[in-house]
Amino acid sequence: MAYQAPIAEIKFVLETIARFSLVRGAQPGSDLSEETTEAVLTEAGRLCEEQIAPLQRSGDMQGAVLKNGRVRSPDGFAEAYSSLVEGGWIGISADESFGGMGLPHAYQVGVHEMMAGACLSFEVQPLLSQSAIDAIQAHASEAIRQTYLPKLVSGVWSGTMNLTEPQAGSDVGALRTKAEPQGNGTYKITGQKIYISWGDCDFTENVCHLVLARTPGAPEGTRGISLFLVPRQIPDADGRAGVANDLRVQSLEHKLGLHASPTCVMQYEGATGWLIGEENAGLAAMFTMMNRARLGVAVQGIGTAEAAYQQATHYAMDRVQGKTRGPTGSIVDHADVRRMLAEMRAEIHAARGIALSCAVAIDLEAQPGWEARAALLTPIAKAFGTDIGVDVASLGIQVHGGMGFVEETGAAQYLRDARVLTIYEGTNGIQAMDLVTRKMSDGGEEAFKLIDEIEQAAEDARAALPDLANALWSAAEGLREATETIVARSVSDRLPASAAYLRAFARVLGGHVHLLSAIAEGGEGPRTRLARFYMARLLPESGGLFAQVAADPSSVLDVTPDDLAA
Amino acid sequence: MAYQAPIAEIKFVLETIARFSLVRGAQPGSDLSEETTEAVLTEAGRLCEEQIAPLQRSGDMQGAVLKNGRVRSPDGFAEAYSSLVEGGWIGISADESFGGMGLPHAYQVGVHEMMAGACLSFEVQPLLSQSAIDAIQAHASEAIRQTYLPKLVSGVWSGTMNLTEPQAGSDVGALRTKAEPQGNGTYKITGQKIYISWGDCDFTENVCHLVLARTPGAPEGTRGISLFLVPRQIPDADGRAGVANDLRVQSLEHKLGLHASPTCVMQYEGATGWLIGEENAGLAAMFTMMNRARLGVAVQGIGTAEAAYQQATHYAMDRVQGKTRGPTGSIVDHADVRRMLAEMRAEIHAARGIALSCAVAIDLEAQPGWEARAALLTPIAKAFGTDIGVDVASLGIQVHGGMGFVEETGAAQYLRDARVLTIYEGTNGIQAMDLVTRKMSDGGEEAFKLIDEIEQAAEDARAALPDLANALWSAAEGLREATETIVARSVSDRLPASAAYLRAFARVLGGHVHLLSAIAEGGEGPRTRLARFYMARLLPESGGLFAQVAADPSSVLDVTPDDLAA
Repeated sequence: MAYQAPIAEIKFVLETIARFSLVRGAQPGSDLSEETTEAVLTEAGRLCEEQIAPLQRSGDMQGAVLKNGRVRSPDGFAEAYSSLVEGGWIGISADESFGGMGLPHAYQVGVHEMMAGACLSFEVQPLLSQSAIDAIQAHASEAIRQTYLPKLVSGVWSGTMNLTEPQAGSDVGALRTKAEPQGNGTYKITGQKIYISWGDCDFTENVCHLVLARTPGAPEGTRGISLFLVPRQIPDADGRAGVANDLRVQSLEHKLGLHASPTCVMQYEGATGWLIGEENAGLAAMFTMMNRARLGVAVQGIGTAEAAYQQATHYAMDRVQGKTRGPTGSIVDHADVRRMLAEMRAEIHAARGIALSCAVAIDLEAQPGWEARAALLTPIAKAFGTDIGVDVASLGIQVHGGMGFVEETGAAQYLRDARVLTIYEGTNGIQAMDLVTRKMSDGGEEAFKLIDEIEQAAEDARAALPDLANALWSAAEGLREATETIVARSVSDRLPASAAYLRAFARVLGGHVHLLSAIAEGGEGPRTRLARFYMARLLPESGGLFAQVAADPSSVLDVTPDDLAA
Repeated sequence: MAYQAPIAEIKFVLETIARFSLVRGAQPGSDLSEETTEAVLTEAGRLCEEQIAPLQRSGDMQGAVLKNGRVRSPDGFAEAYSSLVEGGWIGISADESFGGMGLPHAYQVGVHEMMAGACLSFEVQPLLSQSAIDAIQAHASEAIRQTYLPKLVSGVWSGTMNLTEPQAGSDVGALRTKAEPQGNGTYKITGQKIYISWGDCDFTENVCHLVLARTPGAPEGTRGISLFLVPRQIPDADGRAGVANDLRVQSLEHKLGLHASPTCVMQYEGATGWLIGEENAGLAAMFTMMNRARLGVAVQGIGTAEAAYQQATHYAMDRVQGKTRGPTGSIVDHADVRRMLAEMRAEIHAARGIALSCAVAIDLEAQPGWEARAALLTPIAKAFGTDIGVDVASLGIQVHGGMGFVEETGAAQYLRDARVLTIYEGTNGIQAMDLVTRKMSDGGEEAFKLIDEIEQAAEDARAALPDLANALWSAAEGLREATETIVARSVSDRLPASAAYLRAFARVLGGHVHLLSAIAEGGEGPRTRLARFYMARLLPESGGLFAQVAADPSSVLDVTPDDLAA
């Protein structure tokens, strides 16, 4: 079955769960009506269904290849990209002064979920351009902004992020790429970068690399990193892509999934680069984009899960196997198949609610309190959205039975593609560490505030939906205790249960999302039935997670490296 | 790092946890000393490390191919198979009268775990031959046994299992392959079978297919199914592989994993077959092998998990990234990496304990009570062993970070290969259904008996290891209540929580395995530290699972097909 953009679902979650009305209220002069939400999602959804979704399987089979030092994208990618450019979708939330639509980030997130669901390998490309736009918009000089942003925002040029080196992955401070000043305002960039998605592109006129590097004499570690803009072709006096810069794609990785998205080893051989922001402030500049980029990866997980879910549901409705008492006669009436599909749907809804709430918080960051909310929700949205991306894709295979293991079905591709999402843009372990350290450096204040809101919602719903409200309230109390336990600990003692704590937080937030959905339909109907399923079947996981948080932290590191190697 | 056969671990679990001494005691005249266990595992382990493990990556890259209607296996498979034949490993637990070693099934299970860990695609082949040997040994006429068993047991010929048809997967009763009697004692077999692993083989002289089919006028459904032996080449008067039979491999599936194991679409075009067992009793004949075959798949999961674990541990010990306070300076000292590796190891140990306990029960089936134990443990061993196979392989990727997504590393292959294990030989949903229905048709008697044993072990350990014993005892009580809940329900009401119940049972059994391990080393040392980790970090999952069992069964099927399709 072809991918159907979940327009109504995304609109419901954005408007009803994530309180997009707050963004609307904060921009009184703008045209952010519910009709705008509908129009944006519908228009983008059509593009995803018609132009992007057909690339999913063909792109995987053909793959991106390197030929004579240049990437060749699979058939159809260039055409779909043209449609994206025509619709102005690259610049959806970019400044209008540079040709962007200037729309809220929440719209961009919703649109990218659909694009990722249609074809994840394709969606990676515009997402990276948008990250580059964010960085240049926020930190570059006016001259650079004038030269690059119109081209990037329109999509005529594309952008990449170059952080990782073989010895510097999660530990970005270990990077060694050099940037030597040339006395004319430019720098010579020399070094190797790995895992560079779309490090070359054959359907944009130029590729603009944002590269982290060290200037001579820079402090060691993360405090000595600067950010540079290194275009594949140096803009000429008229701002057009000019002579080739001294950089090349050395090779493409042979990966488990995302075959249509070229993952490049980049070699910089004295390439000309321009400093973005202050010297030695490169990591800070990257961090301002981090929330957005991580949320972008969260919806990559959710979009992939949605596509996997749609395919599995369609298969289950069609496949007849064994007698059932249910209405369809197909395997969807077997209790365990129904359980798997309901689990997939319930997880997607929970994760989407968390991600779009995070997007709304990002849009409200200028208002008091919302920056802390966005900061708190980001690691949860990223880790949970991508964890369920992998889990739902795997369940999708299971629903298909033997057919799920056969590549032609397409179910397996979702798992192959999604599997990197829990790793890139900060592994989910890094997200958990971020949550219990940096994001709890306020003593848990923002977390407790959010837990208060969840409990208040449960209190308010107690009369009308006692079973749902009571389950959620108890779980929120468990989360409160777990949070108290975490913040009372030393930083190093927080880490052994960091992943369990993050997961527990997501579980409770997911319950909140489902409760609000049930309330929104008056406590009766499909959303209420799904909420009841979530409270009965998924929320109980939180109890075991709280127990892990409560356990002596030493039970993890007591298992020694020698024990493991024995 | 090359795969290291976990000889000492398997021996420990077999002798100390799974009580292999009972098998020894039941065969007083035999040479089943601890030295025999050691010698068998050591000899097989060497073969796995030296001959089979090198095929893992090369076999995946080269893949099995179909050329001129015949399967060509990847380079090196034929040579490794010769070593297997030379060592007599195909017939390890086959009757000595047909050239087998006549050793306990538990040895075969231990050996196959190592073979699967070395190269799963390869191991599938002898495992299927052994299933065919089991079926023929138990059900075939003396003439057929004399003709086929010596060849199959020695490994000169190989065997396959042909159950599935496009419309008959989990619902095997829907199969349509025809078997028409020829009046000379043989039948003409006509139909298509799919998912036939090693449906052809270029390193055995003949391939003997065991095929489920229907005779004319047979009852509908599972009661009208008969089992036939259909050799690729019909044995001549001297018992040698003679003229070609009317069957062919139509195509090979293009799969997510197991690329070196050919998955064939088989076309039977009036092929000559011989009835095995009684007419219409084919499914019963298959069921006598089912426990063994399912346990074989369980250790496929465990073996794959062990290999993935070894590789991830080796990588983590080597990879330096960021500062740690730990002893190695490598990422194994990051708390969340240590947590992942400890989880992998603890899960493998739990699953191995369950699987080898099941193997011992199978070896003791002739003794009162053990058949019920084997029957109860089989679905748990299969589902849990394969679930952790997938989960551990996925964690192995996560430990590798970005490298895990790059195929050359080999970490991703374990996930690709393992992903089918939760599906074939009865999906894990089928296992859960089997557990709560057929295996509980005794009113839960055998389950309660096992829970009693677990609680007794906890009681006995309470003085010496109170933290471990208390945690396990409480979880076992939870399992007792969950079991009471399940057996009090109608069959259809048992199904919505069947998967959760099976998982809870495995979780508690895993705790039992870890407690016994800690006791065995006197309550201090690496096994005790791992047991403490298990009780603190993994056993708590059971609480959420019990809550799912306790929940109203209707919360699953209340989510309607229309809700899912919306």
